[in-house]
Amino acid sequence: MQVDFWFEFGSTYSYPAAMRVENEARKRGLALRWRPFLLGPIFKSQGWTDSPFNIYPVKGRYMWRDLERICEERGIPLKHPSRFPRNGLLPARLVARFEDEPWIAAFVRGIYRANFAEDREISDPSVVASVLDSVGQGASLLAEADSEQAKSKLRARTEEAIALGIFGAPSLVTGGELFWGNDRLESALDWAVRSPG
Amino acid sequence: MQVDFWFEFGSTYSYPAAMRVENEARKRGLALRWRPFLLGPIFKSQGWTDSPFNIYPVKGRYMWRDLERICEERGIPLKHPSRFPRNGLLPARLVARFEDEPWIAAFVRGIYRANFAEDREISDPSVVASVLDSVGQGASLLAEADSEQAKSKLRARTEEAIALGIFGAPSLVTGGELFWGNDRLESALDWAVRSPG
Repeated sequence: MQVDFWFEFGSTYSYPAAMRVENEARKRGLALRWRPFLLGPIFKSQGWTDSPFNIYPVKGRYMWRDLERICEERGIPLKHPSRFPRNGLLPARLVARFEDEPWIAAFVRGIYRANFAEDREISDPSVVASVLDSVGQGASLLAEADSEQAKSKLRARTEEAIALGIFGAPSLVTGGELFWGNDRLESALDWAVRSPG
Repeated sequence: MQVDFWFEFGSTYSYPAAMRVENEARKRGLALRWRPFLLGPIFKSQGWTDSPFNIYPVKGRYMWRDLERICEERGIPLKHPSRFPRNGLLPARLVARFEDEPWIAAFVRGIYRANFAEDREISDPSVVASVLDSVGQGASLLAEADSEQAKSKLRARTEEAIALGIFGAPSLVTGGELFWGNDRLESALDWAVRSPG
């Protein structure tokens, strides 16, 4: 069975999920597909021009504390980013362009680590280049983010996310079922294991 | 250790949490306090005059499917209410008035069952009276919902919820930590067990 992991690099709860999902899928013998998309257009259609965690500060304060507890419990390093949300367009276009490459999982985790464990600016090409380097890829790949192929692929993925009923990140889709949130990761994967096909 | 369970009778995710929390607290040797409050004033302060699940239909559709899966997995009966959200003011005032009575836990579950398993109108005094009857209490208690004591107590609880940083239901508070959602119920109770006191 196959599971699609839909994520956005600016999303806080996508961070622990992205760090865990490959390992959890492998343990269950599931095939995992990385599906980048942008939350910006989805939030805009709901009338939000910023993260709801900024628009509703009470909810935002809760989220950061909740994320601290989650990361501590799971041994995932967390450093409150000095800027939130960060613009993940550049690395998201790279993921859209190289979705099926064997190094993409490590690249995704590297970008999340830069944002949420190292407080680095993931819209900065030099930061993205250093993550590419850490997964054995050259900085020359950066230029691919500006290709029409990468741009149209990421737009298409975002349209696909909307068509699937996705409204937040992370989301997991398997067997026609949608699961939203890091706290549904295990439920989604277990659903895939039980699913008839 | 003590855990406070903050709930609103109109809230969907409060339903499975309310059905489970007493048993889960007892298993861990924790003291549980029932804390009713109203989401209406909190939502209004965020600019919402309806449930966010109605304001954002894509999120609403997801929530109902998610709730189905949660209830099915836990063996909790669910019947999609023909009206959502229902006004839980009457039973919430009764809970505020009789918070520490030994029958209050069964009364809370009975009201939730009426709303989410039997599709009954929990703002209807005859429905509330039948739930009172099912927990061995007379319909004469209904009049207490109109008492100044009940009204001011529920108002005070809602103010207290806001002061605690509560923005949704269910919420659990223990040892100065806030946990939001049915999916944080076990985390909250486990935190209470580990907490120094």
